[in-house]
Amino acid sequence: MHLGIFVLGTGHHMGAWRHPDVDANAALDLKFFKEIASIAERGKLDMLFLSDGLTFNRLSHPAEQVRFEPLTLLSALAAVTTKIGLAATASTTYNEPFHIARKFLSIDHLSNGRAGWNVVTSYYEEEAKNFSRENHLEHSVRYDRAAEFVEVVKGLWDSWDDDALIRDKETGVYFDSERLHTLHHQGKYFSVKGPLNASRSKQGQPVIIQAGSSTAGVKLAAETAEVVFTAQQTLEDAQHFYERLKAKAVEFGRNPDTIKVLPGVTPIIGRTEQEAREKYELLQDLIVPEIGLDFLSDYLGGIDLSNYPLDGPLPQQIPETNGNQSRRQLIIDLARRENLTIRQLYKRIAGTRGHRLIFGTPEQIADQLEEWFIHGGADGYNLMFPYLPGSFTEFVDEVIPILQSRGLFRKEYEASTLRGHLGLPTPMSIYSNKKTTAGGI
Amino acid sequence: MHLGIFVLGTGHHMGAWRHPDVDANAALDLKFFKEIASIAERGKLDMLFLSDGLTFNRLSHPAEQVRFEPLTLLSALAAVTTKIGLAATASTTYNEPFHIARKFLSIDHLSNGRAGWNVVTSYYEEEAKNFSRENHLEHSVRYDRAAEFVEVVKGLWDSWDDDALIRDKETGVYFDSERLHTLHHQGKYFSVKGPLNASRSKQGQPVIIQAGSSTAGVKLAAETAEVVFTAQQTLEDAQHFYERLKAKAVEFGRNPDTIKVLPGVTPIIGRTEQEAREKYELLQDLIVPEIGLDFLSDYLGGIDLSNYPLDGPLPQQIPETNGNQSRRQLIIDLARRENLTIRQLYKRIAGTRGHRLIFGTPEQIADQLEEWFIHGGADGYNLMFPYLPGSFTEFVDEVIPILQSRGLFRKEYEASTLRGHLGLPTPMSIYSNKKTTAGGI
Repeated sequence: MHLGIFVLGTGHHMGAWRHPDVDANAALDLKFFKEIASIAERGKLDMLFLSDGLTFNRLSHPAEQVRFEPLTLLSALAAVTTKIGLAATASTTYNEPFHIARKFLSIDHLSNGRAGWNVVTSYYEEEAKNFSRENHLEHSVRYDRAAEFVEVVKGLWDSWDDDALIRDKETGVYFDSERLHTLHHQGKYFSVKGPLNASRSKQGQPVIIQAGSSTAGVKLAAETAEVVFTAQQTLEDAQHFYERLKAKAVEFGRNPDTIKVLPGVTPIIGRTEQEAREKYELLQDLIVPEIGLDFLSDYLGGIDLSNYPLDGPLPQQIPETNGNQSRRQLIIDLARRENLTIRQLYKRIAGTRGHRLIFGTPEQIADQLEEWFIHGGADGYNLMFPYLPGSFTEFVDEVIPILQSRGLFRKEYEASTLRGHLGLPTPMSIYSNKKTTAGGI
Repeated sequence: MHLGIFVLGTGHHMGAWRHPDVDANAALDLKFFKEIASIAERGKLDMLFLSDGLTFNRLSHPAEQVRFEPLTLLSALAAVTTKIGLAATASTTYNEPFHIARKFLSIDHLSNGRAGWNVVTSYYEEEAKNFSRENHLEHSVRYDRAAEFVEVVKGLWDSWDDDALIRDKETGVYFDSERLHTLHHQGKYFSVKGPLNASRSKQGQPVIIQAGSSTAGVKLAAETAEVVFTAQQTLEDAQHFYERLKAKAVEFGRNPDTIKVLPGVTPIIGRTEQEAREKYELLQDLIVPEIGLDFLSDYLGGIDLSNYPLDGPLPQQIPETNGNQSRRQLIIDLARRENLTIRQLYKRIAGTRGHRLIFGTPEQIADQLEEWFIHGGADGYNLMFPYLPGSFTEFVDEVIPILQSRGLFRKEYEASTLRGHLGLPTPMSIYSNKKTTAGGI
C-alpha cells in the first residue's frame, strides 16, 4: 500500500486553523512544514504532496488564500528530509515547459531523487487575469496543451544521458557532448530547443502525477501519469475508476502496475466510531456561518441566503442562475432528501469538499483502507488530514502500526527515491536506442 | 562594508572543478552549497547570491552548463540557514510577474525575511529558443518590459497590509478584507489583476538587485534597485559609476544611501603577493586549451585558431566577422600591446571574464577592499571566489578578521533580515496612504 500526505496548510478542514490544537499562524511558517515532513518520515510514508492555485479566491480554503509557493516550499523540505517523496502541483496552462522541467529536475537533484510533479491544467477561471489573459483556455485546449507540455518536459529531462557527465580532472573533459541531446521540439503550442542545463537525477526523472477525472483527464493520466489522485466516495466507484484507468493505460501500451491509483481520504480516528463522529462535529462547528453560507450560495449559483434562518430549511423557491446547473440541483436534492437545514447543508459541503471521510477506531480505519486496497479500488491513498499535526500524528502512531502488522505497509524504507518507494521503473531515455548516433549538440 | 558571496558552482574560475581541493561533482550536490552557506554565516556575510541563465552554452563556464535552478536551491538553503541573505537572478524577459512575485515572496517567508531578487533581462540570444520565440527581445524593449515587470511585482508584494492577517480563532475572522488590495494592473506588457496569495514578509519586500551597466540598465537600477552589482577594474571607473548611479537615484527622488553599490571582486590570497600570483597561475593552467581556444575564437567573432601554435602570436591577418567589433578589437589590441601568445591571451580572457582580480596577503587584500570603500568606489563587494570552498574559507579565516578589527565589517549579525544587514529601509506599501479607502477585494 502506498501512502502520501496531501498537506493543505494546517489541515484540509476549512475550520482547521480554529482548532484549539492548531497554530493559526503556521500556514506561512517553515517550522510547521518541517514538522509535518518529519512525522511523514517517521510514518514511512511514500510522499508529501502540495497542491497549488494561481489566484486568490475569497471563498476558497484559508490555506489557499495565503500560502507558500509549492516549488519553493518543496525545495526547502528537500534540504531537511532524507527519505520522503516530495511532490507538488504546477499548471501547464500558465507556465513554460522549460521552467517546469528545470525546477522539478532541480528539486529532484536537491532531494537525491525524491521529486514528483502533479500535472494540472488549472481550475479557476480567474487565474487567467493574473497572466495577462482575458479568459481561461477552453477545457479541451488545456488538455491538448498539457499533453504536449508533458512531452516537452520529459524530453528535456532526457537532455543528458546518465553517463554524460565525465568530469575527469586529469583530461579536463567535463562532459561527453555525444551524450548530450538537443530536443529541437516544434509542436502546436511550444517550440523548445533545449538541451536542459541539468543532468538526469538519481531516479532518472521526477514522477508524473495527475488527477484529471474528465475523459481528457483520464486519457492524459493513462498516457503519462505514474501516480493518479482521485476523489471516490464508494468502493464500486473506486473499482470502476481503477479498472477504467488501468485498462486505458494498457491501451497506451503501458504495464498497468506502473500507474498507481491513490484516492483521497480523510480519516477521523476515535476510541469508538461514535467518538470519531463527535470529533468531526466539533470541527464542523468551526466553520464560520458567513463563510459556510457564502460557500453554499456559490454552489447554488450565487443566490443570497442571508435573509433565511440558518436553522431552517432552504427556501422553497430558489431563483434560476447561470451557474453549474447539475451541481446546483444535486445540492437542492440533498437538502430536500435529508431534510437538512441551511446550516447542516453548508457544513456538509464546506466540510468534505467532495472527498471521502472515514470514521472509527484505528482498527476500523485500517479495515476501511485495507478493503479498497485488496478489492481493486486503490493502490494506496492520498491522506487528507482534517487538522495538523494532531490528526496526522494520531494516524502515524495508531493506524500505521496496524497496517504494518497486517503486512500492508512497509516497516522501514527500502528505497531512497520516490520511484523506489512507489515501485515504479526508471524511465528509459528517449535517446537510449540511439546513443551513438544522436550525438552532440 | 557589505559583503556578499556570488556562488557559481565550485568557483568562478573556469578551471575550478579541476583544482585538486575541489569536488568535481559538487555543482549538483546540495551538501556543497550548504557548506558554502554555513561558511558565509560564520563570516557574517550579508548575502549569498546565485546567478542564472536559461540556456545551455557549449562555451560557458561548466557551472553554468549543469546547475541547480537558483530559486529552488535558494529555498533549500533557506531551510538550513538562519542569518545569511539569499539572493538569486530571475529574468523579466522569460517569466511572468505573478510567478516571480510569488516565488521570491515565498522564499522571503521561508527565510524569515532574507530574500533578494536580481532583476535581469537575459543576456543570451539562445534563451528565446527555449521559450517558443524565434528571437530575443531587442535591448530597449527588454528594459522597458523589465521596468513594468518590477512595478507589477512590487505592487503584488503589497497585496496584503502588514496587519491584514487577523486569524482570530474566537471570531473566525482569518483576514481583514479592507486590508487586502487587488492590483488591477493594466500596462503595456502586462495585465495582472492580483491580489497575490501571500502576505508581506518580515522585511516587507524582498530586496531588489540589479546589475545593468548600459544607459537603460543604470536608469532601471537608479529607479528600482537597492543593491547594484557592477564589474569595475579601476578605482576611478568605480568612483565614476558610483557617483553616476547615486546621482541618478537622487533624480528619481531617492535617498542615495538606500542603493548599495557592490563591485565584483576575486581575491587571491597568499603569504606574499608573489605567492598569490603563483596560485593564480596554477588555476590558469587548469583551463583546457581547446576550451580556452574556443572561448578566444568566440570573442574574436568565431574565427578558427586551431591551426596556429598555442605558444605563438595571433595571426597577423584575422578575417573580418559579423561579431561584436569593439570587443574583438579590444582583444586584438591587448594581444599586440602586451605581445601575448595565443595561450596567454585565452588564459587572460577565460580566467577573469571581465572581473577585478586582487592579489596579496590578507592585509593587502583588506587594504584593497578598504581603499575603494573609503574613497567612494563601493559600499561593499560581491565576492567571486576562484574555487570553493577553499578560497572562501581562507578569506573568512584570514581577511574578515582584519576588516572587523579595522571597524569596517560587523563582528556579529545585528539584524536577522537581508534589509537589516544592508541597512535598507522597509518599503512603504503603495496602499499605505489610502488604507481606509482602497479596501477590500
